[in-house]
Amino acid sequence: MIDLSLIRDGGIGWLDASGPESTMVLSTRVRVARNLADHPFTGRNTSDDRLRILGSVLQAASETSTLNEALHFRMDRLDPIDRLVLFERHLASRELSCPEPERTPRVGAAVLAQDHYGVMVNEEDHLRVQAVFSGFDPAGAHAAVAALDSELGQRLAFAFHPEFGYLTACPTNVGTGLRASVLIHLPGLVLTKEITRVLQGLNQVGLTYRGWYGEGSEVIGNFFQLSNQTTLGQTEAELLDHLGKIVRKVMGYEEEARAVLRRDAPHVLEDKVWRAYGLLRYARALSFEEVMNLLSGVRLGVGIGLISDVGMYSLNRLLVFAQPGHLAAASGVAMEDPGLPSRRAAFVRRTLEREADRTERARGPDPEGGDV
Amino acid sequence: MIDLSLIRDGGIGWLDASGPESTMVLSTRVRVARNLADHPFTGRNTSDDRLRILGSVLQAASETSTLNEALHFRMDRLDPIDRLVLFERHLASRELSCPEPERTPRVGAAVLAQDHYGVMVNEEDHLRVQAVFSGFDPAGAHAAVAALDSELGQRLAFAFHPEFGYLTACPTNVGTGLRASVLIHLPGLVLTKEITRVLQGLNQVGLTYRGWYGEGSEVIGNFFQLSNQTTLGQTEAELLDHLGKIVRKVMGYEEEARAVLRRDAPHVLEDKVWRAYGLLRYARALSFEEVMNLLSGVRLGVGIGLISDVGMYSLNRLLVFAQPGHLAAASGVAMEDPGLPSRRAAFVRRTLEREADRTERARGPDPEGGDV
Repeated sequence: MIDLSLIRDGGIGWLDASGPESTMVLSTRVRVARNLADHPFTGRNTSDDRLRILGSVLQAASETSTLNEALHFRMDRLDPIDRLVLFERHLASRELSCPEPERTPRVGAAVLAQDHYGVMVNEEDHLRVQAVFSGFDPAGAHAAVAALDSELGQRLAFAFHPEFGYLTACPTNVGTGLRASVLIHLPGLVLTKEITRVLQGLNQVGLTYRGWYGEGSEVIGNFFQLSNQTTLGQTEAELLDHLGKIVRKVMGYEEEARAVLRRDAPHVLEDKVWRAYGLLRYARALSFEEVMNLLSGVRLGVGIGLISDVGMYSLNRLLVFAQPGHLAAASGVAMEDPGLPSRRAAFVRRTLEREADRTERARGPDPEGGDV
Repeated sequence: MIDLSLIRDGGIGWLDASGPESTMVLSTRVRVARNLADHPFTGRNTSDDRLRILGSVLQAASETSTLNEALHFRMDRLDPIDRLVLFERHLASRELSCPEPERTPRVGAAVLAQDHYGVMVNEEDHLRVQAVFSGFDPAGAHAAVAALDSELGQRLAFAFHPEFGYLTACPTNVGTGLRASVLIHLPGLVLTKEITRVLQGLNQVGLTYRGWYGEGSEVIGNFFQLSNQTTLGQTEAELLDHLGKIVRKVMGYEEEARAVLRRDAPHVLEDKVWRAYGLLRYARALSFEEVMNLLSGVRLGVGIGLISDVGMYSLNRLLVFAQPGHLAAASGVAMEDPGLPSRRAAFVRRTLEREADRTERARGPDPEGGDV
């Protein structure tokens, strides 16, 4: 089994919720797509091509200031469960990691990771260079990616066209090759049923949404990945500025929806939120989907100040570590283990118990009394 | 508002769960039906008749050793909410108390109560004399009723026929006039779906079942009132002996069902039980029916040793005090108050929090640690 604790911050530094607006926005991710000139695109190249590309990237990365201590993982040499863990941690895409046991990653498919930074090698493009920051921080994530991209670009010859910009395997990535996305929690809009209108609106201004596991995945737990649709015809600054403005608007809509719920149905809302907490505290078997939905309820409760017994770091941590691959890997059991829902419930329970103990100790003894 | 705390043990001494098998059997009730000779039955008498009967009963009761300090309540002079409270406490039947606001109790309808003892006056029969004991205790409850019946019989001329025995308004009560019933909790038989067969079997051996609120009421929370169907042609001892044997069998079936569940679906069972506890601990709005169903889950958990954080007294107490009338009366709000489900949830929550604090203090600090 791979040991992700060897990566500084495990590639999930965003869990600490230290960034701006990190109760509503889990993370901001900026990535650029790059290809090496004079090498065929991934869909048309050979194993040897890909191994040469990987060799060049590893060499270049080791000379940068941000990936000089990066761990790297060869997807084609990992067990399915380890590939799943990297996929669940959003360090490797579905295409790169092939988290399904019956599929095999392509030779040379690899991930480099250090701190906020990650590089996928031999994905759809030769390189996908990304930075993930806590909360709503497009500028921070972009500056990080730009610095790393620049360091790599000094050592690798990226395919670039004076008119089209960076060339990519898929035309939607041509141009800046930049995609910025925020992982945002929108339970208020879902509860008020405003979400459909908001998502339709996104489409009209060049944004798109995806589910928890990215492209083609379902929305669970009211977590949406919002990102720009195209990368051509605008500068990186324009793209980020546009995305930032739209996401701010969505955050405003979500705040409004929460205010409406608190005004029109405060007891229903409170009940919903605390029932979610109660089930997480005491259930003995939980599917990942149910955990996501219940954590969504608790996160909403923390966001609107109803719940103070649990910190954002722990909520974020549960989202990652309650996933099937993480849970199976940490417990040393197979993915198909029928005891997984019990183990998940035990993990969730222990986490929330500790949080409650921690916050209770911080508060001191409860002076309240009284009965009906 | 009436103050039931003035009744010694509030007429609900059984809450303390001090009797035998009191985790599965909440209470045992034995009552006899009696009528005064030379007075028309309730269905045919006048207000004056009933007031004379009440006067005689109150006089006789004050001379007994068990009802000498009894409080008495005139149903026809009480507010609907107080009638509802007496009904919910099983001190007055639906017919006597008319707990629905649009109905009016008949003139002279009354209840006397002290410790385990209760007498309904001017119900279907002139007197219904009852004793309620904790747990499974037909002998105890019967001895108590027999003693009180004897004391009353020395002071009141009961209608008695040498061939038929005690005469009653309804032929099903003729003879001994005795009905014994146990309030029993059968979640195992409900979960394994064996309950239908068991209830059918009861019918064949002269027993019948009723719901939480007695005759004509629905079963909620898996609580069943099992009682003898007829009172003619057997001695009181035979009736009680028969009922006792059958109830013991039902208890055995319930134990078997629980054993099957623990063997075949331990995780499902555990999950069900703890989810119920979690919802009761944290929900912010609860209907009485939901509370009953969740308390049923928790009671099952305590019964099979999964839950130790809550005592049987508190579980019993919640069954009584979370009822709509009790809750509205204690909170000083109307029955129709839309905040009642919130108040109920708050009451349940505080009760279980205290129980958890109490048992935690008893246990001392938790030495356990570890994470996934």
